[in-house]
Amino acid sequence: MRVGIVGSGLMGAKLGTLFARAGHEVVFSYARSEQKLSELAREAGAKARHGTVREAAQEADAVLLAVHWSRLDEVLSQTGDLSGKVIVTCSLPMNDDNTELVVAHSSSGAEMLAERLPKAKVVSAFNTVPSEVLFAVFEARRKLTRPSLVYCGDDSRSKRLAAGLIRDVGFDPVDAGPLRIARHTEPFALLVAQLAYEGQGGPELAYRFERF
Amino acid sequence: MRVGIVGSGLMGAKLGTLFARAGHEVVFSYARSEQKLSELAREAGAKARHGTVREAAQEADAVLLAVHWSRLDEVLSQTGDLSGKVIVTCSLPMNDDNTELVVAHSSSGAEMLAERLPKAKVVSAFNTVPSEVLFAVFEARRKLTRPSLVYCGDDSRSKRLAAGLIRDVGFDPVDAGPLRIARHTEPFALLVAQLAYEGQGGPELAYRFERF
Repeated sequence: MRVGIVGSGLMGAKLGTLFARAGHEVVFSYARSEQKLSELAREAGAKARHGTVREAAQEADAVLLAVHWSRLDEVLSQTGDLSGKVIVTCSLPMNDDNTELVVAHSSSGAEMLAERLPKAKVVSAFNTVPSEVLFAVFEARRKLTRPSLVYCGDDSRSKRLAAGLIRDVGFDPVDAGPLRIARHTEPFALLVAQLAYEGQGGPELAYRFERF
Repeated sequence: MRVGIVGSGLMGAKLGTLFARAGHEVVFSYARSEQKLSELAREAGAKARHGTVREAAQEADAVLLAVHWSRLDEVLSQTGDLSGKVIVTCSLPMNDDNTELVVAHSSSGAEMLAERLPKAKVVSAFNTVPSEVLFAVFEARRKLTRPSLVYCGDDSRSKRLAAGLIRDVGFDPVDAGPLRIARHTEPFALLVAQLAYEGQGGPELAYRFERF
């Protein structure tokens, strides 16, 4: 699969690297500098390269949107037409201080994005674990019990595609339902962040849903 | 410990029964009928009895508040003075249809309760797992890896007490921080409910945070 990374910060850089290691063709875009993008692509191996936001978005089977919420307008002005595209978003609608959600309860970042892009297929995923745990989970992916990763969306083909990407990086995909469930998964992401960054034991935190 | 159950519905009845089995003195109060309360107490064994809301609250070292949000005013009018009391609340601030939170994002049910009872010690716990999983987790409590249960609050002694109760019923208590984190744990409870009641595999669902 061709995966376009729009926003090659902490999450985008790590997920893109893991998608490339898992065998996908990855285009990194939108980082602080062209040099960072080119280094990222080189380190991620032969399956990865870097490009413009437009290239990353237009040539992709799935676009990972991993920009800070404050950059959304800017980045959406650069993607070109996203009609029909699968957009996997891990962008939480945080304020500039990263202290709280600016959209919550009666909507969610994922739903706002879907309203902005009514012809795109938006799936919310990858925002409920800290970036610090991603490589460790990938390395442990042959183990019997994988950590969970919740995702939600309204289009079943896009959700299957997102579930495949989740599996490829070592998690067990857990379908949380329609996109409006992002109203619950986004605050859950803040709970995980609280435990990871304020709790005991460091940020390499994941979670697993289990039935008894 | 003496635990007063205020609200002996699904959660209150099961948690009270497990607290009694774990050796605590339990007073069940506030159910649909006196008969239900007396049956509950009989089935929960020698450590359990039933009483009025006032008795359950006044004689307790910890009060479990497990009423529907719509009953909060009524029940608080019956408890007597709760100054200095440890209140462990699992009441989610749901609307009458149980479809969404009526307090969220800029506050939480737990914080509203603490504002109503400024001299009580409020801890939020037990609302992030469905009642259907409680007995199975208790039965499995000797196993090596227990499921997690998040709790939060502003008073450390009360939090230790709540953590002990969480441990007694078979979970691994996870301190999520101050009471305002209920703004994240309450929507998380709705995510768990979504997975339990709308997802694949039935409602006997728990979760575990793991570090990698």
